[in-house]
Amino acid sequence: MLGNFTYCNPTRIHFGKNAIDALVDELNKFGKKVMLSYGGGSIKQNGIYEQVIRALKTAGKEIYEDGGVMPNPTVEKLAEGAKIVRDNDIDLILAVGGGSTCDYAKAVSVSAYCEDDPWEKYYIRFEEPTCKIVPVGCVLTMVGTGSEMNGGAVITNHAKKLKIGHVFGSDVFPKFAILNPEFTFTVPKYQMVSGIFDIMSHILEQYFSGEDDNTSDYIAEGLMRSLIQSSRAAVKNPQDYEARSNIMWTATWALNTLIAQGKSTDWEVHMLGQAVSAHTDATHGMTLSAVSLPYYRYILPYGLAKFRRYALNVWNVNPAGKTDEEIANEGLAAMEAWMKEIGVVTDIRTLGVTEDIIEGIADSTLIMQGGYKVLTRADVISILKASL
Amino acid sequence: MLGNFTYCNPTRIHFGKNAIDALVDELNKFGKKVMLSYGGGSIKQNGIYEQVIRALKTAGKEIYEDGGVMPNPTVEKLAEGAKIVRDNDIDLILAVGGGSTCDYAKAVSVSAYCEDDPWEKYYIRFEEPTCKIVPVGCVLTMVGTGSEMNGGAVITNHAKKLKIGHVFGSDVFPKFAILNPEFTFTVPKYQMVSGIFDIMSHILEQYFSGEDDNTSDYIAEGLMRSLIQSSRAAVKNPQDYEARSNIMWTATWALNTLIAQGKSTDWEVHMLGQAVSAHTDATHGMTLSAVSLPYYRYILPYGLAKFRRYALNVWNVNPAGKTDEEIANEGLAAMEAWMKEIGVVTDIRTLGVTEDIIEGIADSTLIMQGGYKVLTRADVISILKASL
Repeated sequence: MLGNFTYCNPTRIHFGKNAIDALVDELNKFGKKVMLSYGGGSIKQNGIYEQVIRALKTAGKEIYEDGGVMPNPTVEKLAEGAKIVRDNDIDLILAVGGGSTCDYAKAVSVSAYCEDDPWEKYYIRFEEPTCKIVPVGCVLTMVGTGSEMNGGAVITNHAKKLKIGHVFGSDVFPKFAILNPEFTFTVPKYQMVSGIFDIMSHILEQYFSGEDDNTSDYIAEGLMRSLIQSSRAAVKNPQDYEARSNIMWTATWALNTLIAQGKSTDWEVHMLGQAVSAHTDATHGMTLSAVSLPYYRYILPYGLAKFRRYALNVWNVNPAGKTDEEIANEGLAAMEAWMKEIGVVTDIRTLGVTEDIIEGIADSTLIMQGGYKVLTRADVISILKASL
Repeated sequence: MLGNFTYCNPTRIHFGKNAIDALVDELNKFGKKVMLSYGGGSIKQNGIYEQVIRALKTAGKEIYEDGGVMPNPTVEKLAEGAKIVRDNDIDLILAVGGGSTCDYAKAVSVSAYCEDDPWEKYYIRFEEPTCKIVPVGCVLTMVGTGSEMNGGAVITNHAKKLKIGHVFGSDVFPKFAILNPEFTFTVPKYQMVSGIFDIMSHILEQYFSGEDDNTSDYIAEGLMRSLIQSSRAAVKNPQDYEARSNIMWTATWALNTLIAQGKSTDWEVHMLGQAVSAHTDATHGMTLSAVSLPYYRYILPYGLAKFRRYALNVWNVNPAGKTDEEIANEGLAAMEAWMKEIGVVTDIRTLGVTEDIIEGIADSTLIMQGGYKVLTRADVISILKASL
């Protein structure tokens, strides 16, 4: 833990089959006016919407509907939500959905009373909120982003072909989150495995950075081992509560700041994936899986010791009689086999990318400083071409 | 994660070489009157006392001294601290020390205004506080108990030969904690390794319980791997900042409720150790190390699958050609070798126990329900005799 840090994560998590029973008590802590934000309406088919409405009515709330949050929430939708909050003096934003809805709710919470253009302030200049922050609560229905217990809020600007995340401080974290693994049972398999790879990528992108011996990396290895085990079980049987609950909890801890403490992090895979997504609107987790192996194979020589450790501690590669390179490559081969087993996309062509838009994607790719190799534009293009 | 749970850990941690720089800002959040609780005065020799006083003065506080907190804080000391708080209308209890001082501060925080006898209410009837809770802050100088980020508060009653812990809810957690690994450099080696084994025992006692596949156990394995690595480095060079910082952070996460979520836990080793301590006043971590191997070898046949997993995932035992029992026993042998390497006590005779007080220790040993075997009194006596 060579770095200095402040850790504070005040989100209260209610986890398990009866987690929603805690919702009324949580709602009672806030004022009367609740904006209910959700996505395309699947929560109306699976009964979750009804359960939430019942809790809101029991708690005597006025409900302001805000449906239609899209998988990659846009600046236009953000402005719409912020206007509802402002016009109605909303006391609590209740996000019911996956990471996109939670992200959106947090972005709205710091945008409703923003004295400036929120896109410019938070996503171009990366400034911290200086206005009133509207509290957010969350009922999670899809797993992956960890958005239920962090300050992250990714917003897409189609006009500018940009998808950018801002990680806000603990004042913006959801005040509470309801996590019932059964709420994730009806998520289509494509979305489930996309979420699983998103989790894996969150862990990997914090893990593959830094040279020191750090407790955070050991926790990361534990989370990855749990995720690999549970994802295999969940793909075989999506109704496996034990597996789905482990995946849900791993997702939360993969991105709630814990495993980044005291160390550097990378995030280049997310930058590549977000650039692909801005040009194709492909599902987030699949954009990450499609570029990961070419990226990691590209940077492996620069972070050999860590890739060797990854192979040994996460994939149980037997090192006997092998060079460090062989061990490290065997780890990535084991990862590739696992990715094919759970069924994530491993090339960007499947996501709609063609040779002619590679340059444009490269232009949209932000370059991070924490990886084992800081990429040049030529590196980005090589990786994207290898991902086709 | 088959169990349901609520997770909330609001303690703000400032970690690193400059962590104490955050103290003034934290103090400013509370009222003027601060009770400063600390132990035998070593903080006056190593300069920590001075740094704390400087921060208190900068923040304009009135300081109420409360030194002399002993390694196993007593009910009599608890009453003394509670009286200072009550008589002076204290706004914040600032604990400067190790786990004993933090534990004591939390016990005082719920005892000062307790309408009943605190020992009877919290340590015999295990009731929750119903009175005003005085906020606690913490500057940590010794590592092991995790008390800086949890609700635990162990108190010793010499008259009754009992040492009992109560785990309070998140309202009683320290509001903030200052963790500078350098503050632990002057801790004598005996205390350092005692703290290291206390951490290991916290993890083990949550790990060795339950039959399900649970993310908490994977995180526990990561923490143990980090601790084993760092403890070896710290014993060679106690000034190794990297090692000491990893140990400090592992200690916090070993007992801040995370790795107990969604699963059962055991805690019988702590019950055995606390009984030994009540009869000998021996150092806490050493009482745990002295009884651990006999206890784990005794229950191994009842939890064979988990002991096998422990051997493979924590101690890298090579399973080739071995029975499950052989693998499991090899794991405990590796643990024993590590214990000898770092220099913890592995028998209770060294701590002052003789045959004639074994029965009395057994009478003081609380029996827990979460282990792989619920002990009988005869089991306890067998384990204690094997520990001699």
